[in-house]
Amino acid sequence: MTKLQEMGQKAKVAARVLANAGAKKDAALMSIADGLVANVERIISANKIDLEQARAGGMSESMLDRLTLNEARIKDMAEGARQVAAQTDPIGRILSGEVRPNGMKIEKVAVPLGVIGMIYEARPNVTADAAVLCLKAGNAIILRGGKEAIHSNTAITEVMRDAVESTGLPRDSIQLIEDTSRQSSVELMGLTEYLDVLIPRGGAGLIRSVKENSHVPVIETGVGNCHVYVDDSADLEMAARIIFNSKTSRPSVCNAAETLLVHSAVAEKFLPVAKKMLDEKKVQLRADERALQNLGACDTVIPAVEDDWATEFSDYILAVRVVDSLDEAIEHISKYSSGHSEAIVTNNYGHARQFTSRVDAAAVYVNVSTRFTDGGQFGLGAEIGISTQKLHARGPMGVNELTSQKFIITGDGQIRE
Amino acid sequence: MTKLQEMGQKAKVAARVLANAGAKKDAALMSIADGLVANVERIISANKIDLEQARAGGMSESMLDRLTLNEARIKDMAEGARQVAAQTDPIGRILSGEVRPNGMKIEKVAVPLGVIGMIYEARPNVTADAAVLCLKAGNAIILRGGKEAIHSNTAITEVMRDAVESTGLPRDSIQLIEDTSRQSSVELMGLTEYLDVLIPRGGAGLIRSVKENSHVPVIETGVGNCHVYVDDSADLEMAARIIFNSKTSRPSVCNAAETLLVHSAVAEKFLPVAKKMLDEKKVQLRADERALQNLGACDTVIPAVEDDWATEFSDYILAVRVVDSLDEAIEHISKYSSGHSEAIVTNNYGHARQFTSRVDAAAVYVNVSTRFTDGGQFGLGAEIGISTQKLHARGPMGVNELTSQKFIITGDGQIRE
Repeated sequence: MTKLQEMGQKAKVAARVLANAGAKKDAALMSIADGLVANVERIISANKIDLEQARAGGMSESMLDRLTLNEARIKDMAEGARQVAAQTDPIGRILSGEVRPNGMKIEKVAVPLGVIGMIYEARPNVTADAAVLCLKAGNAIILRGGKEAIHSNTAITEVMRDAVESTGLPRDSIQLIEDTSRQSSVELMGLTEYLDVLIPRGGAGLIRSVKENSHVPVIETGVGNCHVYVDDSADLEMAARIIFNSKTSRPSVCNAAETLLVHSAVAEKFLPVAKKMLDEKKVQLRADERALQNLGACDTVIPAVEDDWATEFSDYILAVRVVDSLDEAIEHISKYSSGHSEAIVTNNYGHARQFTSRVDAAAVYVNVSTRFTDGGQFGLGAEIGISTQKLHARGPMGVNELTSQKFIITGDGQIRE
Repeated sequence: MTKLQEMGQKAKVAARVLANAGAKKDAALMSIADGLVANVERIISANKIDLEQARAGGMSESMLDRLTLNEARIKDMAEGARQVAAQTDPIGRILSGEVRPNGMKIEKVAVPLGVIGMIYEARPNVTADAAVLCLKAGNAIILRGGKEAIHSNTAITEVMRDAVESTGLPRDSIQLIEDTSRQSSVELMGLTEYLDVLIPRGGAGLIRSVKENSHVPVIETGVGNCHVYVDDSADLEMAARIIFNSKTSRPSVCNAAETLLVHSAVAEKFLPVAKKMLDEKKVQLRADERALQNLGACDTVIPAVEDDWATEFSDYILAVRVVDSLDEAIEHISKYSSGHSEAIVTNNYGHARQFTSRVDAAAVYVNVSTRFTDGGQFGLGAEIGISTQKLHARGPMGVNELTSQKFIITGDGQIRE
């Protein structure tokens, strides 16, 4: 038996206890919160080792920032655990039920998924956030973080394991894979006997690799090539505010807009207005031929190439295209969208209806910024990721999305004729 | 572009039309029903070719029976289509919704999965049943049936495609892969660009192969190693009726019981009673040492070997084991169950509660036969299969389980601070 298979077996044993742990889970979460706060120095010391190695390895400043833990960030992790503890237990909810004609009662009840594997990249706060959400939903978790954060992740995990154990729940409810080689990741993707689901969280490359290579069922998360379409009937001031917010409020995240589509009837009027706002943040516009005519080539406006329509820039870059109709906008979105968040700005009732019913994405917006696709903003509480697949869960995934179900049938001797 | 990729592309185009086809789908289903009835002779002729080839190839009588189509069976398929047409449209249901503090309205709405692939074995009626359910839920389907039924499947598919087209919906809503080589199956499992989900339906070997090799998300169906546990507090007459029904009413199906567990306190009294009933159907009992002592070795009682606990016999064979406690029964089930259907017979309230909360299966029964795990019996209408995985759907899958969801967010200019 390999090390990972042993971890899988331990996780399965822990998961059986967690499945019926009820309010003990919340005590464990509060204990995790306290443990994180009490161990701020220990975690920061571990993080310093990661940061030194990363600096020596030439990591970029923005990546170093993602890797950095300080007191405030650790307290945020703790506060997250407390908030999740305060949420309603998702397990045991009766999702539906009825008494059948033969008198047997059928209830569909929420149960944990079981054992969740998580493969993620540099940000060490994911270690706590993911473990906390999985624990709340009664799942054991096996974490496989990036090698850049291994010391931070190890410290956080040990603090959480101590905390969970101190409340009488299994220490192995939360496990971290120490081996950060590619091999451990591949082995995790093949651990079908022990894992019920694998959630990758990170860049497009990671997600694609897990999707293509995993034998364990996967929930794809977070690749966002999002569009804002400005219809000919749009309130152009509102449209400018929405594209500005969708693009610039946090360009690195998956719900940021990457392409602006503008109806030709309003392009001449709208594009210069939008450009003026976007110039404040020095957004580079990659424009198709007709958009170029309206914008004029300059420092921040260059011609778009085919690849731009398919790219998640995650930066102050926006592709811009002029279309002649709602149909053309929807066609463009169907072709290039990653199925994350898509918005229309319109005052035309029929166009709003058509856009929401015909665009196939996790979140479809009318006159609202794409930036709201987020568990907290949707009122789900914390989220473990945003699913862009159609199976199991789609859109922001909170604790309810980390559950499965079972049918419980009770009777008094019913047999089938 | 390969033949299968072309089919994938056509299916995607069809799926976009089906997603918003509303009541037209029901007209198409009624048209399919009429078409099947009108083409009984054509379908039976095609089936005869399959049957002749199968007989020449030495197919067993029970398999030949599964392959055979006659007027009654074809009319059953048509009746199935009519019943599905009469069901409520699963698409567009508002699953939940609220207005957020910033005034934007969020609705979670049921949408189709998109394009569904289905790999199945000899029974040609699956061709119609699967297509009908997928169509109702607004999905396009690509069918890959077994080579034994290729003429029957082709005839049924052509009848359905004509029927769908005649009502104005895309002919390619339903497609059948003509190539029944292993290669086409492997290629289908890699068609990630076009397929949203792949559902295998058939024996354990097929399911395992698809689960292990598919890159498209899979819903596992129908492998059942089901147990009936007779508690020390059980009504023993009821217990005998339940194990008799669970084992013998249709041994070839996945919700039939394969192992009987009996509490040691009642084994001596219960086992001879159960054996007497099971003898009526000449059920072979494969008993552990203590069960053997109570049953006595004879024609129909032989010692169990380790493999028997893990085997789905699908036949008049039942493994029997004596256990000393509820815990031991649950341990046995945890170790060997395929997570399909598990039953306890008991009059002990606490044991019933513990069994239903601790046993991890799609359906957990108290004092009811395992044979009820079935879409029709659960009131879901027709089913496309019984999921034994935890992701997306678990237990019988009807039309609602063939849907995904999207969030629709409407507002008046909301941006994120």
